[in-house]
Amino acid sequence: MSQFIENCWYVAAWEHELTAGGLFARTVCDVPLVMWRDQGGLPVALEDRCCHRGAPLSLGRREGDCVRCLYHGLKFDSTGACIEVPGLDRAPPKARVRRLPCVLSHRWVWVWLGEPALADESLIPDAHWLDEPGWACTPPGYLHYAVNHRLINDNLLDFSHLAYVHQGTLGGSEAYAQLRPEIEDIPSGLRITRWQLDVPPAPFVAKVKRYPGNVDRWNIYDFVLPGVLLMDSGFAPTGTAAREGHRADAVEFRSCQAVTPESAGSSHYFFAQPRNFAHGDEAVDRSLHSSLVEAFEEDRGIITAQSRAFAKDARFEPLPMWVDSALIRFRRLEDEARRRDGVARPERPSAAAPSSLAA
Amino acid sequence: MSQFIENCWYVAAWEHELTAGGLFARTVCDVPLVMWRDQGGLPVALEDRCCHRGAPLSLGRREGDCVRCLYHGLKFDSTGACIEVPGLDRAPPKARVRRLPCVLSHRWVWVWLGEPALADESLIPDAHWLDEPGWACTPPGYLHYAVNHRLINDNLLDFSHLAYVHQGTLGGSEAYAQLRPEIEDIPSGLRITRWQLDVPPAPFVAKVKRYPGNVDRWNIYDFVLPGVLLMDSGFAPTGTAAREGHRADAVEFRSCQAVTPESAGSSHYFFAQPRNFAHGDEAVDRSLHSSLVEAFEEDRGIITAQSRAFAKDARFEPLPMWVDSALIRFRRLEDEARRRDGVARPERPSAAAPSSLAA
Amino acid sequence: MSQFIENCWYVAAWEHELTAGGLFARTVCDVPLVMWRDQGGLPVALEDRCCHRGAPLSLGRREGDCVRCLYHGLKFDSTGACIEVPGLDRAPPKARVRRLPCVLSHRWVWVWLGEPALADESLIPDAHWLDEPGWACTPPGYLHYAVNHRLINDNLLDFSHLAYVHQGTLGGSEAYAQLRPEIEDIPSGLRITRWQLDVPPAPFVAKVKRYPGNVDRWNIYDFVLPGVLLMDSGFAPTGTAAREGHRADAVEFRSCQAVTPESAGSSHYFFAQPRNFAHGDEAVDRSLHSSLVEAFEEDRGIITAQSRAFAKDARFEPLPMWVDSALIRFRRLEDEARRRDGVARPERPSAAAPSSLAA
Repeated sequence: MSQFIENCWYVAAWEHELTAGGLFARTVCDVPLVMWRDQGGLPVALEDRCCHRGAPLSLGRREGDCVRCLYHGLKFDSTGACIEVPGLDRAPPKARVRRLPCVLSHRWVWVWLGEPALADESLIPDAHWLDEPGWACTPPGYLHYAVNHRLINDNLLDFSHLAYVHQGTLGGSEAYAQLRPEIEDIPSGLRITRWQLDVPPAPFVAKVKRYPGNVDRWNIYDFVLPGVLLMDSGFAPTGTAAREGHRADAVEFRSCQAVTPESAGSSHYFFAQPRNFAHGDEAVDRSLHSSLVEAFEEDRGIITAQSRAFAKDARFEPLPMWVDSALIRFRRLEDEARRRDGVARPERPSAAAPSSLAA
Repeated sequence: MSQFIENCWYVAAWEHELTAGGLFARTVCDVPLVMWRDQGGLPVALEDRCCHRGAPLSLGRREGDCVRCLYHGLKFDSTGACIEVPGLDRAPPKARVRRLPCVLSHRWVWVWLGEPALADESLIPDAHWLDEPGWACTPPGYLHYAVNHRLINDNLLDFSHLAYVHQGTLGGSEAYAQLRPEIEDIPSGLRITRWQLDVPPAPFVAKVKRYPGNVDRWNIYDFVLPGVLLMDSGFAPTGTAAREGHRADAVEFRSCQAVTPESAGSSHYFFAQPRNFAHGDEAVDRSLHSSLVEAFEEDRGIITAQSRAFAKDARFEPLPMWVDSALIRFRRLEDEARRRDGVARPERPSAAAPSSLAA
Repeated sequence: MSQFIENCWYVAAWEHELTAGGLFARTVCDVPLVMWRDQGGLPVALEDRCCHRGAPLSLGRREGDCVRCLYHGLKFDSTGACIEVPGLDRAPPKARVRRLPCVLSHRWVWVWLGEPALADESLIPDAHWLDEPGWACTPPGYLHYAVNHRLINDNLLDFSHLAYVHQGTLGGSEAYAQLRPEIEDIPSGLRITRWQLDVPPAPFVAKVKRYPGNVDRWNIYDFVLPGVLLMDSGFAPTGTAAREGHRADAVEFRSCQAVTPESAGSSHYFFAQPRNFAHGDEAVDRSLHSSLVEAFEEDRGIITAQSRAFAKDARFEPLPMWVDSALIRFRRLEDEARRRDGVARPERPSAAAPSSLAA
């Protein structure tokens, strides 16, 4: 069983990272990828390794919708088929690199690592707020983590840490840490809901909206496989029935975040924060983006330290607390998905002896 | 059998490293420690890893004599007991981190890694010169080594290297390298004695003391487990019977040094040099400290190169020479102590499978 | 079977790296070497590890034709015999370090790693152009590679990459990439020949020689074990029968290159380019040297990227193409040589348990 879920969609890049004429390299779940957008604007993802002698195609050259390896000149089309070998009349059919299903959806570039026939685009989590008119959005955010992705998922599945990790930034009182969220099963994930009713507006809200009295405050987020967070959060005047689904005079956010494994010990983290106010106001964009980066760096600090502690002593067993119930349930979902992969995919033959051409 | 002696006292820090309101992190024999001084001035050492999710407590916050983990807010007292879990009325009794016996003695902070019931303070080596009125002392010295502690011990157990490693600094003539020391067994260690009678005073002595004629010169040091060097060295006019125990008109030093494993491949080295002259003279303090650091950096250079040579070829077998007799005897003492640990401590059950919460 | 050929000569250094009074350290095939030139000018290579406690002799001190270890003072002559141990009347006969046959030949310092009795100097590849009057030569070139030597050999055995890796430097058209070279067996290696007849002179030739019409162009190189390239390349006016062996009015080069393993994952690369024109013209020396370095850095870039791709996935199997026939044949020669080593050398007893003095 692979340590990563195979049959699922992963965020591999922000749309802007795939430039028109260029090649973009990123590793997802130990698979090195070369990505680009073809002349029709469609994203392409191939394994970033020439089938001939292993050179990265991302160091090669775009030629129209194809890529040429700049070691010995093999040329591949966007299906991964080799269409030219210098000195041969035709490329041998065995010459090809793996192509991965790749879809651009709402500014995120998604790749499917598993069985291509199972790559159903309707399974892609819906992050439409990222590019929907009516929602203003911070610039695309990215952090690289030198930790296993599960530790980041854990962090995102338990917001009680806001009161301790982000005391000076996002805030979060000790009362917030004690608030027991509602946790529901949803397809491929969990929905986590916290309401604080009739509380004074947080200082950062006072900056963007003047409420005469107390507010109701909520965080409601779906966290779905492989590690995508889609959050509805905001504030509305107490008495306007926000909890019942009304959103009158509300300040709202739709944070979109995705955790993608790079390797067993490193991860990608993509994030941006759509909002329903201050459209086109770049100062607000920058300010919110900075606040996110500052807070997420705090997460990265403590999670990296935690990862080092695990690395020092493989025998250490964490002691589960009530705050861990969401993350325990999510890890179980992940394990089940990996087991389903094993059933879906016929076992590959075991690796043959390394070829005499490998070094 | 652990590769480190467990039932013994290790120097973990200099007194000044444990500040009043702060937290100090250092790893000793692969055990990460968080240390502080409580409001009564007593030193505290806990394992630097929250029992809940593994975050380092040293990144937490002092609250009176307690420490609060700044990941999810668990609070621990100085016995290691968890006394607060946000969202719970009372902390579960299983929630605790390991506390290690910890004692401040003559400016060194000592910790005991083994069975707490065996932590007899009377076993702490006596480095009283470090803070005894009547002895002036250099500032506290510390070097980090990227080598196994045994290679540093070896170096300290054989001063014949003075003529070669420290030719331009501490000096040491080739004659000194040929001088066979007396080696005696003492409790938990060895006493090593070298006398040079009726020799001209060394240049550095001439700076602090004008002797009309020749001097007798001695180095007598105890090297005791786990790796503590306490040395009586000095000069006295020839004819004043220094060797018989008289110390008339003598220049004397009491170098105190401790080698503490950090991990199998890295070590801590603590040192300072008390003396019986130039009390309160900070220029002499600085000058002697600089000389020590310069010489000990020479040791670190050759020992690190030696360690790399061992690492390159695990099959290399050193060829023992007469100068190695003390270090061979000391390694035997260390091995015996590790065997005694195995008898003192009932074997722990073998490590269970990693918890599903570890990454 | 060792992963390196043992019974063969390796280039270990350029002549100028072994200075008169100094000591030079370099590791060849995992064997750390200390090298120097004795007072008669002869090169000496000893294992760079004192037999006593493992300190590198290259950190020691030259004393005449001997070296003294600057840890505990053992002194070794240029045969590797210990001739002095401080404190002993005579060094024990077992005290010695390994001496390797070492020969200076045409500015390259060659060492023999295998059975000394088999070290036949007549087996040293003949790179006489490096210091022969009549040939002008670029300064000695050296690059360090963080890859297995086989990947560099592969690169040198297949010049089709010139059209892709060196498009902007050495040039090489796509037509060049399609040219099938002649590959012949020679003792311990292969001869690879490419002729281009009746072609316009390359731009860089136009700089040094004005030809009225087309030229014949050739690259003929021997690539011999363990990884030495000796190339005859040049240009002559078409119609002067260069291919039949005449060299009238020709611009000629004799590139000499050597790949020497440092370890399984790193290599040394030595190179220089003799020529038959512009003798004593340092501007041409520098210009040619710069061009070589620029092009060889391009090789290093793609080969290092290739090596990382192999490292990421041990199961990757390269797909052989026609351009690989020389490198496949050469790897077979290398494997055969390693097997012959196993027959020549009686199996050493398996490594004993590490001595108690190793760390």
